[in-house]
Amino acid sequence: MEQLTTSLDVLFILLGAILVLFMHAGFAFLEVGTVQHKNQVNALVKIMSDLGVSTVAYFFIGYGIAYGVFLGFNLDGQLTQAMTEKSGYDLVKFFFLMTFAAAIPAIVSGGIAERARFYPILLATFLTVAFIYPLFEGISWNGNFGIQNWLEASFGAGFHDFAGSIVVHAVGGWIALAAILVLGARHNRYDSNGKIRSVYPPSSIPFLALGAWILSVGWFGFNVMSAQAVGGIQGLVAMNSLMAMVGGILAATFFSNKDPGFVHNGPLAGLVAICAGSDVVNPLGALVIGLVAGLLFVKAFSWTQNNLKIDDVLGVWPLHGLCGMWGALAAGVFGSTALGGLGGVSFASQVVGTLIGVAIAFVGGYLVYFIVHKISNLRMDDEEQYLGADLSIHRTHANPPKEEF
Amino acid sequence: MEQLTTSLDVLFILLGAILVLFMHAGFAFLEVGTVQHKNQVNALVKIMSDLGVSTVAYFFIGYGIAYGVFLGFNLDGQLTQAMTEKSGYDLVKFFFLMTFAAAIPAIVSGGIAERARFYPILLATFLTVAFIYPLFEGISWNGNFGIQNWLEASFGAGFHDFAGSIVVHAVGGWIALAAILVLGARHNRYDSNGKIRSVYPPSSIPFLALGAWILSVGWFGFNVMSAQAVGGIQGLVAMNSLMAMVGGILAATFFSNKDPGFVHNGPLAGLVAICAGSDVVNPLGALVIGLVAGLLFVKAFSWTQNNLKIDDVLGVWPLHGLCGMWGALAAGVFGSTALGGLGGVSFASQVVGTLIGVAIAFVGGYLVYFIVHKISNLRMDDEEQYLGADLSIHRTHANPPKEEF
Amino acid sequence: MEQLTTSLDVLFILLGAILVLFMHAGFAFLEVGTVQHKNQVNALVKIMSDLGVSTVAYFFIGYGIAYGVFLGFNLDGQLTQAMTEKSGYDLVKFFFLMTFAAAIPAIVSGGIAERARFYPILLATFLTVAFIYPLFEGISWNGNFGIQNWLEASFGAGFHDFAGSIVVHAVGGWIALAAILVLGARHNRYDSNGKIRSVYPPSSIPFLALGAWILSVGWFGFNVMSAQAVGGIQGLVAMNSLMAMVGGILAATFFSNKDPGFVHNGPLAGLVAICAGSDVVNPLGALVIGLVAGLLFVKAFSWTQNNLKIDDVLGVWPLHGLCGMWGALAAGVFGSTALGGLGGVSFASQVVGTLIGVAIAFVGGYLVYFIVHKISNLRMDDEEQYLGADLSIHRTHANPPKEEF
Repeated sequence: MEQLTTSLDVLFILLGAILVLFMHAGFAFLEVGTVQHKNQVNALVKIMSDLGVSTVAYFFIGYGIAYGVFLGFNLDGQLTQAMTEKSGYDLVKFFFLMTFAAAIPAIVSGGIAERARFYPILLATFLTVAFIYPLFEGISWNGNFGIQNWLEASFGAGFHDFAGSIVVHAVGGWIALAAILVLGARHNRYDSNGKIRSVYPPSSIPFLALGAWILSVGWFGFNVMSAQAVGGIQGLVAMNSLMAMVGGILAATFFSNKDPGFVHNGPLAGLVAICAGSDVVNPLGALVIGLVAGLLFVKAFSWTQNNLKIDDVLGVWPLHGLCGMWGALAAGVFGSTALGGLGGVSFASQVVGTLIGVAIAFVGGYLVYFIVHKISNLRMDDEEQYLGADLSIHRTHANPPKEEF
Repeated sequence: MEQLTTSLDVLFILLGAILVLFMHAGFAFLEVGTVQHKNQVNALVKIMSDLGVSTVAYFFIGYGIAYGVFLGFNLDGQLTQAMTEKSGYDLVKFFFLMTFAAAIPAIVSGGIAERARFYPILLATFLTVAFIYPLFEGISWNGNFGIQNWLEASFGAGFHDFAGSIVVHAVGGWIALAAILVLGARHNRYDSNGKIRSVYPPSSIPFLALGAWILSVGWFGFNVMSAQAVGGIQGLVAMNSLMAMVGGILAATFFSNKDPGFVHNGPLAGLVAICAGSDVVNPLGALVIGLVAGLLFVKAFSWTQNNLKIDDVLGVWPLHGLCGMWGALAAGVFGSTALGGLGGVSFASQVVGTLIGVAIAFVGGYLVYFIVHKISNLRMDDEEQYLGADLSIHRTHANPPKEEF
Repeated sequence: MEQLTTSLDVLFILLGAILVLFMHAGFAFLEVGTVQHKNQVNALVKIMSDLGVSTVAYFFIGYGIAYGVFLGFNLDGQLTQAMTEKSGYDLVKFFFLMTFAAAIPAIVSGGIAERARFYPILLATFLTVAFIYPLFEGISWNGNFGIQNWLEASFGAGFHDFAGSIVVHAVGGWIALAAILVLGARHNRYDSNGKIRSVYPPSSIPFLALGAWILSVGWFGFNVMSAQAVGGIQGLVAMNSLMAMVGGILAATFFSNKDPGFVHNGPLAGLVAICAGSDVVNPLGALVIGLVAGLLFVKAFSWTQNNLKIDDVLGVWPLHGLCGMWGALAAGVFGSTALGGLGGVSFASQVVGTLIGVAIAFVGGYLVYFIVHKISNLRMDDEEQYLGADLSIHRTHANPPKEEF
């Protein structure tokens, strides 16, 4: 019986890992569809290579910083032990959490698309996944530095982020913002008065939509399997994810008046926002959280591009950064029993946790990208940008130009 | 132990829900690939927005009509209760069944593609999922109105539709037929003598194929998880789904002489047909059911377009409507022990159930689309159709025309 | 309890079957993206129709040759019995193993792309899946002909191929090599001096990447569910698959200098190689196995095309054939306790098993394709090749040429 439960826990968290691994294909295609045709190949290669670098960074360093176990170095034989103990549960847990960690560069990638050099970005990915991401992950999910204890003692409940509205999404979004600021806008994006000069429509709505679908479907693994044991599974988490996704779809449909880019980012906005509170809010609360997230994304996307002059190609800062913050705060509101939630959350702790997470991400991200930029220029020059990353970095096209295709 | 079984039931039905949710991406890409390039965006946005509307309609009304529980209104606190009881099983069950309900507008969408206005369709989706679909769902799967009891008393067995050949597919297909009749053929599709004037080849066989693959793979969740509890899992259901899918592939390959559109709809024809009897027929029977379904689709598709002048863009009436009927009747034949099945089915009940389902769908669907058409014109005018739904409804292209792409 | 375990075993292996079925979509898109645009439709139809033929071949003949149970003929009522016994476990096991068998023609398909006629290939697929593949499958995984016993007696351990580096991949790759030799190079591929005359860049990097992603994700079902019972699940298998995949990504990224085709075949190279030893090697060993596999693929791909004049369109011989061999040998090295593995492997047995597998595949494959070629010419003539398989075989295009698309 105990053996069976262990086997099932391995299966459970493995299914989560597979689903979130699949999300990386989603990140890739969301970016492929959104960027210009001349940068499609680069989007694909970046996501794949980033995944490789992230795994190594997290295996040798990041996971250890967050959870105190440096698997890759097998210092006290933990790796050897994990191979056979508990049917290898600890290894699959690493796999699952690695797919979260690797989401950080995948989020950043969409923000800095169409102008980033290749190898320097891999270096920044390594540093981010090894050192920045696990810092707040450890604080939130492993009680590092006693911050959760302090919050609980001060406000009656710790910072609640069930599946990573802040830990993954806001952190990813705010690191992306830092990277965007370091790299600067794309060549020709704004004129000298700061007006948008060049508008680049998505090169492929079908690929953009494919990415959104894969992300949406995989997200159920992201959220539900965050319970990390089959005994802790909650249908509520799946239901709330559904309702927030739907809220995001509806808000994006109506507030963008059927714009395909927004309609397909809408569900993602809802899903980003529901991560934090999916285990405590009421499904009706989840619907509201998703509706607000969808609206927030539609409005903030245009506002950041036009007013703040932030050249965030996929809108990852509003999507992950701002909707993530909204989600964490909303968990503190809709999670309360007064609003039909299951309780055990504190709005104050949500505020404090959110601010710590965002601060670590922005400062840490800025440091990483700034240093890498100084060491080895992160930015493609104007001519390379004009030519496109596919040709200038990968010496090829997404589709050969001679073909009738 | 009981707790573990409950957790596993949640996991089981959730996996089904995830797989069927993924099928909606399949519906989207099947339509994207089949329609003209100028209508690709519209196909994608419709499926996504329909999903949002369907969830809300089913949550507040449809699920209640079928099963007596109006979750969205939380009348007797059922929603609150479902949040924590049985690890949230009832919520995931809703999620699973919602993904079935939302298949109805996704099926209809393919039939009325390239000429339907946007918001009026969303209204029709709401009404269909809230009122029409759950009517027969409740009759079949919840014993509403005592019809199953009466069939069982009269013919020795109730209407058997394990995973929805009629409940989902034929109902979807016949509602689509009604909608197609209300909307009329696309501009320029037939000339004044009723001959086909314009033939529109699929804009993208790869996207069409992608949709077919996603649907086929997700279908195993549709069928197997219809057991709704892990203890009720039957390898037979998976095996029969496989054999019918393969029968559909082979029949479509040979009878269409390798036409890519048919070859990729063949597996779907087989899978539509096997839903009803997948838990009772023999795998060899399933192979025959799939072969006949594949042949039926190939022949009926051309016949309905050419002879009946039904402008059903994806052929959803033959695919879901007719193959669904074939499947339900075939379950009554191949399910009998005389033909190697497990028995417990009555051909008479299959006939009666099929007719009731189809009648409700066609009449109900006609009413809904007719009324919505009267209220707010469902049909794009000729110029909008000529321009394409992407530009006239969504003010964009699937791919920007300036690009070399 | 026993009933629950049986149900869970059905679920477990079914999840594997679903994931590996999905991999067939991956094979399809990897080929779609790699071939020229004029051959995309053919790639899609081949994979789908091959799947249909493979299932029938394996159901009636192949599975019986490997495991002694001719399910399709139901000789001693095994099919009838399997319908109800053990919740249908034996049927789902067939399904799972069929998805492996059907990988053989899917692998071959990529090697002989752009020049093979349609129906003759289906015949070769039938013969291969019915007779050649199951021969070595039975030897390896069912102890047929006592070869495993003899190896164990001689070298202390049998031939260890947990998930099919040889049984599936090398066998597929070497059958493909035979088929390529029988068919000859594509028209105009080499000039009279044997220099490459025409270079055909991939028609679509996004589709190629989509295929690689689907394959990579589905592979976790291929490897983990090879345990065939939930009680035998090993987190180690998943972890090693991840590490080898990542090794392949990194090696391909750096050694191909970011070539998108290589970067997306890199993870596949790593995954092919780890199949054999994923249950016995150390994760660090898996990383090395993947790194070497990625490097091997990059180097061998160019070398076979340029020096050996083997016109292997997708490079399936280096990918599946050579990386598979490397993986089986590496399992004998890194699986030893001296290198941190779990032991129980013999390098000598790995060498012998590998050679037997490769010999059966190459000789058997050559016979099949040679005979079919004699009976009914396998090769499209030069004009058909020039026109493209889509138009000459399927009378259509992947995308209609008139469209602005």
